[in-house]
Amino acid sequence: MAKTPVLTPQAEDLPRWYQDVISKAELADNGPVRGTMVIRPTGYALWERMQREVDDRIKATGAQNAYFPLFIPESYLRREAEHVEGFSPELAVVTHAGGKQLEEPVVVRPTSETIINAFFSKWVQSYRDLPLLVNNWSNVVRWEMRPRIFLRTTEFLWQEGHTCHASYEDARDYARRILHEVYEDFMVHTLALPVLVGRKTARERFAGAINTLTCEGMMGDGKALQMGTSHELGQNFAKVFDVQFTSAEGTREYAWQTSWGVSTRMVGGLIMGHGDDAGLRVPPRLAPVQALVLVVKDGEGVREAATKLADELRGAGVRVALDDRTDTPFGRRAVDAELKGIPVRIEVGPRDLVEGNVTVARRIPHTKAPTALAAVVDAVTAALTEDQQALYDEALARREQYTADVATVEEAAEAAATGWARVPWAALGEAGEAKLAEQSVSVRCLVRPDGSVPEAGDESDLVAIVGRSY
Amino acid sequence: MAKTPVLTPQAEDLPRWYQDVISKAELADNGPVRGTMVIRPTGYALWERMQREVDDRIKATGAQNAYFPLFIPESYLRREAEHVEGFSPELAVVTHAGGKQLEEPVVVRPTSETIINAFFSKWVQSYRDLPLLVNNWSNVVRWEMRPRIFLRTTEFLWQEGHTCHASYEDARDYARRILHEVYEDFMVHTLALPVLVGRKTARERFAGAINTLTCEGMMGDGKALQMGTSHELGQNFAKVFDVQFTSAEGTREYAWQTSWGVSTRMVGGLIMGHGDDAGLRVPPRLAPVQALVLVVKDGEGVREAATKLADELRGAGVRVALDDRTDTPFGRRAVDAELKGIPVRIEVGPRDLVEGNVTVARRIPHTKAPTALAAVVDAVTAALTEDQQALYDEALARREQYTADVATVEEAAEAAATGWARVPWAALGEAGEAKLAEQSVSVRCLVRPDGSVPEAGDESDLVAIVGRSY
Repeated sequence: MAKTPVLTPQAEDLPRWYQDVISKAELADNGPVRGTMVIRPTGYALWERMQREVDDRIKATGAQNAYFPLFIPESYLRREAEHVEGFSPELAVVTHAGGKQLEEPVVVRPTSETIINAFFSKWVQSYRDLPLLVNNWSNVVRWEMRPRIFLRTTEFLWQEGHTCHASYEDARDYARRILHEVYEDFMVHTLALPVLVGRKTARERFAGAINTLTCEGMMGDGKALQMGTSHELGQNFAKVFDVQFTSAEGTREYAWQTSWGVSTRMVGGLIMGHGDDAGLRVPPRLAPVQALVLVVKDGEGVREAATKLADELRGAGVRVALDDRTDTPFGRRAVDAELKGIPVRIEVGPRDLVEGNVTVARRIPHTKAPTALAAVVDAVTAALTEDQQALYDEALARREQYTADVATVEEAAEAAATGWARVPWAALGEAGEAKLAEQSVSVRCLVRPDGSVPEAGDESDLVAIVGRSY
Repeated sequence: MAKTPVLTPQAEDLPRWYQDVISKAELADNGPVRGTMVIRPTGYALWERMQREVDDRIKATGAQNAYFPLFIPESYLRREAEHVEGFSPELAVVTHAGGKQLEEPVVVRPTSETIINAFFSKWVQSYRDLPLLVNNWSNVVRWEMRPRIFLRTTEFLWQEGHTCHASYEDARDYARRILHEVYEDFMVHTLALPVLVGRKTARERFAGAINTLTCEGMMGDGKALQMGTSHELGQNFAKVFDVQFTSAEGTREYAWQTSWGVSTRMVGGLIMGHGDDAGLRVPPRLAPVQALVLVVKDGEGVREAATKLADELRGAGVRVALDDRTDTPFGRRAVDAELKGIPVRIEVGPRDLVEGNVTVARRIPHTKAPTALAAVVDAVTAALTEDQQALYDEALARREQYTADVATVEEAAEAAATGWARVPWAALGEAGEAKLAEQSVSVRCLVRPDGSVPEAGDESDLVAIVGRSY
């Protein structure tokens, strides 16, 4: 297949490559209101698969889905001081509705801690009501000064989980469970992104939390992307919204809480984390279409063979699509499949078919091989398994290559020009963190020397992961 | 089980019964901003099941999901005259964002024809791009003067489908396909509601459509609920937003379009359509929990037997939950299961178990019977099938009982006091329709004498279905 350079090469200009691939693979468009986006069917199918995978894992932890309103009275946000300070500059405010000025303006939710806690205070009465584990799939709005499609949009889609527990330990353990069993597991095993999990510094903590845990992915250019966070809220919101319960011993206690979320930003992470100069590369476990059966051109038995192959693959549990639009040039359709990152393409044409063959083209090792019809199903299922691992291995190798062990603030800043630095938190501290911030470099997270996630308050021997970020 | 009257009896005050069941079955709460709602886990699980069933059917017609922005520039809505007139009084307007007054106010979408067509005009170039079939699951806002939870809320959840076709006939056929294969099929076979499908009169048509098709359900009090609509938009929006394509013959043509939606209002229809004095009754095919295995109280082998039964039922494809919270009184848990309308309850207690029995309690025929352990799976699966049909039959019998064949406007108004009237459209006409409207009675839809749905423009021999509505 002729290789027309449809995208700006990554090495030349990564931000432009990112815009190109989003446009050419028909993933999304910018909306008319600045910072909003239209997620096109190809992009939305990725998000739907992410939703399904994350939702299954959330439910496996015992949480249930619910829906809380888009509109929050402005006064609710003011109740938690840090929270309102963090979110005020980003709010969209409805002042008029139903043809009249509203008595109290309402904000479009930037996150829902306040309104959810107003209801938790009604629902939680006794220790028997705990833990209360609720998740909400929704859209939220944060007015962004420098929007970038998928990564930082004025409106984005996400899930936000909110929970109440009877003890500090219970809340702490659940926040970690979400971090590891839901987010890290999904990102590593489905997205094939070797995210680094750790604890945020006080400076980077969620407004209103006592501890924020995070999954940080390294993108193709060595920058970090915060892909999901899980917060311990302590009793901050419980006290402000009076979420109290009667304990087994009969005392009245404030609930211990968590909140946690992942968003359509993960689609950006997928693009930036795995894409190459030919377009997207979608990990097979995520891919809405794992194998595309492509009729090259019409000829004796071609459509029949293609349909039969598609059915066989479907029967083997592969997510398949059939492209028999022979009124569109084959080359254009093949390039489109590459752009969209479909893991395997099976090209069925009259010439190969005479010899009992088709061509199996893989997106992840960029290879093409003639394959006997009878061997296609095995070849495809093997490729899907191998290529899931290959993408992960490649991303991990990149992270290791572009992560430097350093000892000082200056060295950390230098390493952050091309990737991440690992630096003792003791050598950095809040002063070093502030100094790095002047150069747009941040502490992405703190980890223990063995790579595990430190508890809130654990300050001994920590390692800071430092980098630039999206 | 003691029957405490936890709900206001339906015959006494149906609106109050409705509020009671929503509160006591923990389906939803009113939000702090007037007309908004919080959908609690029990209510949201019903909506999730509805979404999954409707989404599968939508995809089977070839449509793909996408996401369009919440915020629409005010100017977009003004472009289609009828459309803006229809929606202006209900708009919520964002005037401030990011700490500043916006140059152009943005409206929170009440429906998305305008913004979607602005993108269709970019995406549609050639007849090869058609049909373009897109669906969006989202929240929309219409400022309601008289909100009623689920039935008419300021913010609601829905799907809105939008399509472009190369010809009038194609668009017309697709709008009908959605009406019958997606909405009617789902409502009849899953919701067990015998909806009447027909065409709206010009007066009741969607603002901007050339034809509106509808599914009308009869609620427990004889009132109608419009449960889903499918519109032919003609070329109205295509002309305003310049959605043109090059035909196979090389001419430039405006696309023919449809739009269609169902919403969380269906949850209200489910409650009002099937509920009784003991609470909700959920059709087995919809039910998130079809069978609840309930540990009555602890005793030798009780939990083991309950767990084994739950596993067996799950193995037989039944959606099962296990309730072993023996620290909460059994009676309260049984009443809760009745309130929530769980189709089958299997009560496992020490006394019955000695004799190798459990009690199978069915919600739809309100019966309880001791059942041998080995016979439970068969009894439950048979009950689920029977009770799905029984709910439908009951609703159909009610609709037939409360529908009167009449000949005049006056008789139609009288019949609408308790149910629906079937009256020749020729005897009514737009003048009769206006007269009925003064008494809050409306033409729910027009049907052909054989019950089929008339085409746009077909005015011969039509029958009007007349009633009050939610």
